[in-house]
Amino acid sequence: MSSYGLEIISREQCYALIGTQRVGRVAVVSGHPGVFPVLYALLDEDVVFRTAPGTKLVAAALNRDVVFEVDSFDVVKHTGWSVNVFGQAEEIVAPDEVARVESLGLESWAGEVRDRVVRIRAVDVSGRRVVGDAATNH
Amino acid sequence: MSSYGLEIISREQCYALIGTQRVGRVAVVSGHPGVFPVLYALLDEDVVFRTAPGTKLVAAALNRDVVFEVDSFDVVKHTGWSVNVFGQAEEIVAPDEVARVESLGLESWAGEVRDRVVRIRAVDVSGRRVVGDAATNH
Repeated sequence: MSSYGLEIISREQCYALIGTQRVGRVAVVSGHPGVFPVLYALLDEDVVFRTAPGTKLVAAALNRDVVFEVDSFDVVKHTGWSVNVFGQAEEIVAPDEVARVESLGLESWAGEVRDRVVRIRAVDVSGRRVVGDAATNH
Repeated sequence: MSSYGLEIISREQCYALIGTQRVGRVAVVSGHPGVFPVLYALLDEDVVFRTAPGTKLVAAALNRDVVFEVDSFDVVKHTGWSVNVFGQAEEIVAPDEVARVESLGLESWAGEVRDRVVRIRAVDVSGRRVVGDAATNH
């Protein structure tokens, strides 16, 4: 147990790990705070997701600083990682950008049809990995 | 698709759902924001977790407002839920309370031995479930 610990993940590795998952969480850190699951994709170096107009997430997150988080953890092997993307959430309205997001085949978490497309402009990307006996066997 | 949507979960159901998982996330919403995975348990109506002294999580979260979030989502069936527990993070130092947490068999995310025990005093508990065609078949 004593050899477990946390290791910093490089920015490049963070993006590779973000690409392995589909469900992440958006933490709204100002105003009325909350954490909302999202189905997401990467658009260049930004995280994009879809959500319905009028939702708590849209009201709380748009044009505010948010933290997007995604992780994966194996409770048996006790290995895992977590990545944070800090930035401002902005609605994507330009038709060419909306079309690019459409091409990603992204769905919204709650499956809404009339949805809005949100981008988190990545300002700071950081990640940590649990390393230890179990992890070093791989 | 049009019948999908979000349904509010009762406080009682939120606690039942929290009890079904082991990994959640703590979002620090003031100071330097960040989202940290934790292995957690319930101590009465509070969320408790262990973490090492000197970690970013301890420095960022203690005696501050945080949002604990846990969710489960099936990307194929498109069903899932998410629960938020809003409250202040406090270190547990009273020996009898530490002993109660010890009895829960709780580990820290990064497997540290010399750890600290943190409680999130639940002030507000809320939850949402994705409901739709797939969900109503159950």
